Amino acid sequence: MDYSALLAELAAEVRPLLGQGRVADYIPLLARADPSRFGLAMADLEGGLCGTGDDQESFSIQSISKVFALALTLPHLGEPLWRRVGKEPSGNPFNSLVQLEYERGLPRNPFINAGALVVTDALLSLTGDACGTVLAFLRAQAGPGQVAVDEDIAESEWQHRDRNAALAHFMKSFGNLHNPVDEVLRHYFRQCAIRMNCRQLARAGLFLANHGLCPDGRRLLTRSQAKQINAIMLTCGTYDAAGEFAYRVGLPCKSGVGGGILAIIPNRMALATWSPGLDAQGNSLAGLAVLDHFTTRTGLSIF
Amino acid sequence: MDYSALLAELAAEVRPLLGQGRVADYIPLLARADPSRFGLAMADLEGGLCGTGDDQESFSIQSISKVFALALTLPHLGEPLWRRVGKEPSGNPFNSLVQLEYERGLPRNPFINAGALVVTDALLSLTGDACGTVLAFLRAQAGPGQVAVDEDIAESEWQHRDRNAALAHFMKSFGNLHNPVDEVLRHYFRQCAIRMNCRQLARAGLFLANHGLCPDGRRLLTRSQAKQINAIMLTCGTYDAAGEFAYRVGLPCKSGVGGGILAIIPNRMALATWSPGLDAQGNSLAGLAVLDHFTTRTGLSIF
Amino acid sequence: MDYSALLAELAAEVRPLLGQGRVADYIPLLARADPSRFGLAMADLEGGLCGTGDDQESFSIQSISKVFALALTLPHLGEPLWRRVGKEPSGNPFNSLVQLEYERGLPRNPFINAGALVVTDALLSLTGDACGTVLAFLRAQAGPGQVAVDEDIAESEWQHRDRNAALAHFMKSFGNLHNPVDEVLRHYFRQCAIRMNCRQLARAGLFLANHGLCPDGRRLLTRSQAKQINAIMLTCGTYDAAGEFAYRVGLPCKSGVGGGILAIIPNRMALATWSPGLDAQGNSLAGLAVLDHFTTRTGLSIF
Amino acid sequence: MDYSALLAELAAEVRPLLGQGRVADYIPLLARADPSRFGLAMADLEGGLCGTGDDQESFSIQSISKVFALALTLPHLGEPLWRRVGKEPSGNPFNSLVQLEYERGLPRNPFINAGALVVTDALLSLTGDACGTVLAFLRAQAGPGQVAVDEDIAESEWQHRDRNAALAHFMKSFGNLHNPVDEVLRHYFRQCAIRMNCRQLARAGLFLANHGLCPDGRRLLTRSQAKQINAIMLTCGTYDAAGEFAYRVGLPCKSGVGGGILAIIPNRMALATWSPGLDAQGNSLAGLAVLDHFTTRTGLSIF
Repeated sequence: MDYSALLAELAAEVRPLLGQGRVADYIPLLARADPSRFGLAMADLEGGLCGTGDDQESFSIQSISKVFALALTLPHLGEPLWRRVGKEPSGNPFNSLVQLEYERGLPRNPFINAGALVVTDALLSLTGDACGTVLAFLRAQAGPGQVAVDEDIAESEWQHRDRNAALAHFMKSFGNLHNPVDEVLRHYFRQCAIRMNCRQLARAGLFLANHGLCPDGRRLLTRSQAKQINAIMLTCGTYDAAGEFAYRVGLPCKSGVGGGILAIIPNRMALATWSPGLDAQGNSLAGLAVLDHFTTRTGLSIF
Repeated sequence: MDYSALLAELAAEVRPLLGQGRVADYIPLLARADPSRFGLAMADLEGGLCGTGDDQESFSIQSISKVFALALTLPHLGEPLWRRVGKEPSGNPFNSLVQLEYERGLPRNPFINAGALVVTDALLSLTGDACGTVLAFLRAQAGPGQVAVDEDIAESEWQHRDRNAALAHFMKSFGNLHNPVDEVLRHYFRQCAIRMNCRQLARAGLFLANHGLCPDGRRLLTRSQAKQINAIMLTCGTYDAAGEFAYRVGLPCKSGVGGGILAIIPNRMALATWSPGLDAQGNSLAGLAVLDHFTTRTGLSIF
Repeated sequence: MDYSALLAELAAEVRPLLGQGRVADYIPLLARADPSRFGLAMADLEGGLCGTGDDQESFSIQSISKVFALALTLPHLGEPLWRRVGKEPSGNPFNSLVQLEYERGLPRNPFINAGALVVTDALLSLTGDACGTVLAFLRAQAGPGQVAVDEDIAESEWQHRDRNAALAHFMKSFGNLHNPVDEVLRHYFRQCAIRMNCRQLARAGLFLANHGLCPDGRRLLTRSQAKQINAIMLTCGTYDAAGEFAYRVGLPCKSGVGGGILAIIPNRMALATWSPGLDAQGNSLAGLAVLDHFTTRTGLSIF
Repeated sequence: MDYSALLAELAAEVRPLLGQGRVADYIPLLARADPSRFGLAMADLEGGLCGTGDDQESFSIQSISKVFALALTLPHLGEPLWRRVGKEPSGNPFNSLVQLEYERGLPRNPFINAGALVVTDALLSLTGDACGTVLAFLRAQAGPGQVAVDEDIAESEWQHRDRNAALAHFMKSFGNLHNPVDEVLRHYFRQCAIRMNCRQLARAGLFLANHGLCPDGRRLLTRSQAKQINAIMLTCGTYDAAGEFAYRVGLPCKSGVGGGILAIIPNRMALATWSPGLDAQGNSLAGLAVLDHFTTRTGLSIF
């Protein structure tokens, strides 16, 4: 199939949605994003790479970085990681403290903020530089172009860190954070502030479609670990809309409030889309729509 | 592949688990189940049907009936059904009232008890006989052998109905139950008390592997509705262990406290397994293990 | 002090509030109450009795009956009663299920609905007729005039019983209700549907101002038990406004959604007021105001 | 009555309890307290002052400081303070985050940690030195002897600040903390780390028994504000045991994990007791017992 043409067609279909939704505004720098932008790219296991729209414009990947941090931590720790963070959906908003209190500091999964902070803390303990490790991996995998931390956004997140600081201190009070709170937060915010474009993101995510094997031949994850991460993406990757994504898109996805979404089609390809207008659950409005259309058109849903 | 031989091999692999776990004991009749029993069967889209062990012994399908009630209700109501019950994972035990209170009587999904009661209520309004409708469908689809309500179990559930009666009255107080509470409960308990065997269950679930088309050519669901139900099974079908099932088994599954599990491999087949010993989450210990081995051996996980 | 004149003065002061607030409307019969009515009465330990306004018009005492049910149950069971119901404030709405779930069916105190159902259940076990026991006590204590169950209101409560039925079934599922749910509910609704007037209510509550000794010389409670009930009235007697009552009125009070409030001044007197217009917390608007003015004018607050 | 003899008698009665209970051990310095110590003192409105046991040995007042911080803040802010912190009992542990999340950063009352942090923040905004203001007041009121911050304990609290830091950051994220989190915490920990003895504490609390008027003639609070604080002490002053205190002691009390309790008898006197062994709710075991005996013997309960 000529995916290049298909992507362009699908982009045209969702054009009416551009400018709708709400741009993330909890930090001023994100609020400046232009809601009319839209990019879409795919990378497949045969080395194919194509895209449409603003697919070469870099954006803040935000929570999508949690996938990579997890993938870089899991091989080192293995199953014991799951004693510090669960792998079940939460049924609560992504930054809620309620579940964390009832379950004594153990986050439900690695994609809610609390769980991602635990993963960053673990990666920091393992490597001494959590954000640097994520960044180095993305640079190695992403192909041409820059991949960099947007330090202004990282600093702005730090200025508005209270909710995440509350989560971190709370887990620390239960002994589930090993490094100093402020240090973990700095790495976490810098990791979330990484900028890259849709083409780069699709390439960087390809190892999840390939059972843990990177395009350059490096084995990052075992088959079983790749399956674990895909499963967690499907059940927990899109905030409080995992159910809706599962039945509309039917693919493991991870979204970020910057408007990006990474979607995995096991054995085949990775898709990346970006559009800053968000729906009420914090997922890209046009991104969800274009992925929905994609699986409807191609029948490539996993269900 | 000769699935018949494979099933027998897998059954041998999980034999050491038989007798472990805990038989459901919240009603006396279920507590009498023999934890050493084990059955496994598969039905495929080409008409193949095979099984091993106690695959022709009938058992109480319990919560697995929720899948069929949903599949028989959704085509009539369509999207408006989702205004009465959500499709997101709950993050709370299957019979919890907390979420129901915070969300004003709207259950998170159709597979927690509260949500299943809403579905039964809707089916009752639509047909005048919710349990009878489920039973007629199962009899038509299941192939040879008896499919019947175990009235002793239904009566015993009724005697121990307090938790479910609390859920039902609570939803009724929010206007989210339209028929009298006791009538809905009676239909619900009888529907859960249906007995059938693994072979029958695999056949009856085949329409979910075939995008909504039953083996007899009847279209029960649209493609999109079949996808919805598979997605909800994956994210919510196994109580508080959906995440663990997703990454160990990687298939849409629905379990019951009688020890049964129905698993769907889209485009290919349905599997049914039964063994009464349950793990801490209420899922069949040997059932989970055998499905895990199956997807590991065949590579037929959706991830 | 000439309390008769004072009561009339205070009644005049709160007149502008009459007609404000919201009449309870969760059952149709209560919704018909006239929000412009207002009664106030006091009975003191010297045998004094006076009142003003509609102090001789009977009204539905609703939750105020919980005080009498408790006072009639506590002497029989003593401390073991507190193993079935707590005596701490709840911090949740009076009919919430959340606390009940987290504390495994043990209500926080005897004045939230769940706790009152446990008390009625205990009184039913002790006497065979919970409502009849409360009624007989009130008739014996209240002095002239009728005290009777308004059977229409009791029936209407039964028709709208879902929230209370949920609480009752939920506690039953934890073994904290010993009689059949429907029987407990019937007694509870009839007890709440008792009608009497302010003068009668003030007289009937006098034993709480007199350390457990009734005007007719009967010792209902020990000193310590009377102190217990006063303390629970102060900390839990006015739904989610106990703190506000404590600092504005500074007396043990119990309110009902019919618009009545019973207030106790230990060692001195009991006050009863009635006005159907309720504030957002479900307490009588004019009733709270008149008690506030009373303690401000007389300095008879306990603080 | 010769209170001096009575206090000695009561002290003898509770002697068997000394050494029981558990000393607070969440910070190492508090864990060193000697559970066999016991002090009791009273100060009355006529200028009487007496005590028994270790009544002149200073201890860490901890949460009792919250009463003084509140009393020094309320006159400046008046009713608007209650828009930042409630005055209702919480029904949750003193350092819980759950209520805070459901009520969007508004603590239920000024005596749970979250509420006390808001009061300290407000006092800091008003005076530029929250702890210094509390300390100056205590020194002025307490009479002979030293009143000082135990800087080692304050530092140790700071080292173990994670739970309180979580509360503070969480409220800050809702805009309900105006000063920098770390600054508020430092003032809060130092204020809690003030050491004084029972005699000093009884004298310093006397204004609450005297409708807001200090022994030196200074009017700290209006009558109504003094009543507010007494009411909040009764309903919220002893962690999750306010109900039990209300009915056993029947006085407004505020306890601290250092083992101190301040109790107010309106119009008469203030009592202070200290003994480090705590019960399961975190209140001094011997302290609760001695206050219980005191009101039983004297009949001076407010109920």
